[in-house]
Amino acid sequence: MSQPEPTPLRRPRADRARQVADVLRHQIHAGAFDSALPGEQELAAEFFVSRNTIREALSVLKDEGLIERGPRTGTHVAVRKYDHGLDALVGLQETFKEYGEVRNEVRAVQHLAAPPAVARKLCLDPGAQVVFVERLRYLGDLPLSLDLTYLVADVAAAVLAHPLETNDVFALIEQVSGQRLGTASLALEAVAADAHSAATLQIPAGAALLMLERLTRLDDGRPVDLEYIRMRGDRITMRGNLLRSIP
Amino acid sequence: MSQPEPTPLRRPRADRARQVADVLRHQIHAGAFDSALPGEQELAAEFFVSRNTIREALSVLKDEGLIERGPRTGTHVAVRKYDHGLDALVGLQETFKEYGEVRNEVRAVQHLAAPPAVARKLCLDPGAQVVFVERLRYLGDLPLSLDLTYLVADVAAAVLAHPLETNDVFALIEQVSGQRLGTASLALEAVAADAHSAATLQIPAGAALLMLERLTRLDDGRPVDLEYIRMRGDRITMRGNLLRSIP
Repeated sequence: MSQPEPTPLRRPRADRARQVADVLRHQIHAGAFDSALPGEQELAAEFFVSRNTIREALSVLKDEGLIERGPRTGTHVAVRKYDHGLDALVGLQETFKEYGEVRNEVRAVQHLAAPPAVARKLCLDPGAQVVFVERLRYLGDLPLSLDLTYLVADVAAAVLAHPLETNDVFALIEQVSGQRLGTASLALEAVAADAHSAATLQIPAGAALLMLERLTRLDDGRPVDLEYIRMRGDRITMRGNLLRSIP
Repeated sequence: MSQPEPTPLRRPRADRARQVADVLRHQIHAGAFDSALPGEQELAAEFFVSRNTIREALSVLKDEGLIERGPRTGTHVAVRKYDHGLDALVGLQETFKEYGEVRNEVRAVQHLAAPPAVARKLCLDPGAQVVFVERLRYLGDLPLSLDLTYLVADVAAAVLAHPLETNDVFALIEQVSGQRLGTASLALEAVAADAHSAATLQIPAGAALLMLERLTRLDDGRPVDLEYIRMRGDRITMRGNLLRSIP
């Protein structure tokens, strides 16, 4: 087959701006800029586009809250995002230990009968006792995620003997069960924050959240921990590595 | 340490509604309901909560666009979400083959000098020639993702000899390089769609997107494909499995 003609360079400016914004976004996350971004002229030269295109790209990133711009002060990085591993089964405290102290506000601890759908996931009979724990998780003073957790009763009884404010549930499960965690099944979505969750996480209603459903098993395969986790999209990036599957 | 007192059952209704909504959300995704959800009374019994709490939970899911509710018609599933694997390096067409036909609208094919940040990722000299491809990817008539791709020149030359409308780039890279893909590094974020991207993907401005940056290497370790992918949050769930890392 013959090579297709390249499309002309004059694409709509919004398309070119998005192209630039995507590369800049990840440079910002990677810490490529020491607070201040290069000037418009310099960026225009780097990306081989016009200053107007750079301005539009920066305006996209500003709307996302990633940068601040001022006529005198130039363009600065506004927020830092934290990397959360997608590869390994690691608690938040373990994950963020290089960034600072993770503390948990325990909003609820309840013994309750498992709704059928929860019971099925945890391989329990419908109505079996489980323990529900709701935690708002902070890095320093910044609320990062809201975790709703269902634990099987025997594991929960031992876990609850330890302070949840300062411990990862994963670490406690391993400690009390005497087993390593095995595998977890995970579903990750992007959802707009409902007003109530947004207020709890101190973000605007409708802000993008990473929503994680995670079912975690002990090393022997028994599911013990079902979690529904809302992570602030403006503050957390999930990172990992993939392998091409064997055909 | 002694067991903490469980918190009383009377939490704010919005908290209890979220708790129910999270379980229902994943039941909907898992296809637990054949279009119609059970009635409020039945759900209230299942979750051991009041009908008012069920109503509030359903209203959260309605606001997310997951369900439709009518006074006569009851509650129905409004959209179907598609599962995208987080474990393996698989193209969209390969991933969604059980759901239907993936076709790509090729919005741009451009030979360009790699901006320094792109060149670094692809282990090229700044300004080296790369090929930029922008594709809007449909499942049937539904736009699912907008992919901005940078390919190294030699691989691109061979890839572009094939129709991009109907092929996964991953499959083409393997075909033309005679190598399997090796690993990919991946960063996944939740971001609000800017107005231009939203219009392209036929979603409201500000809707939640899964934003994926993915750098893919050939089996010999050479990076060849850098992609920035916006996936519709209302239509795609990323799913995978994690292993507890070895201590």
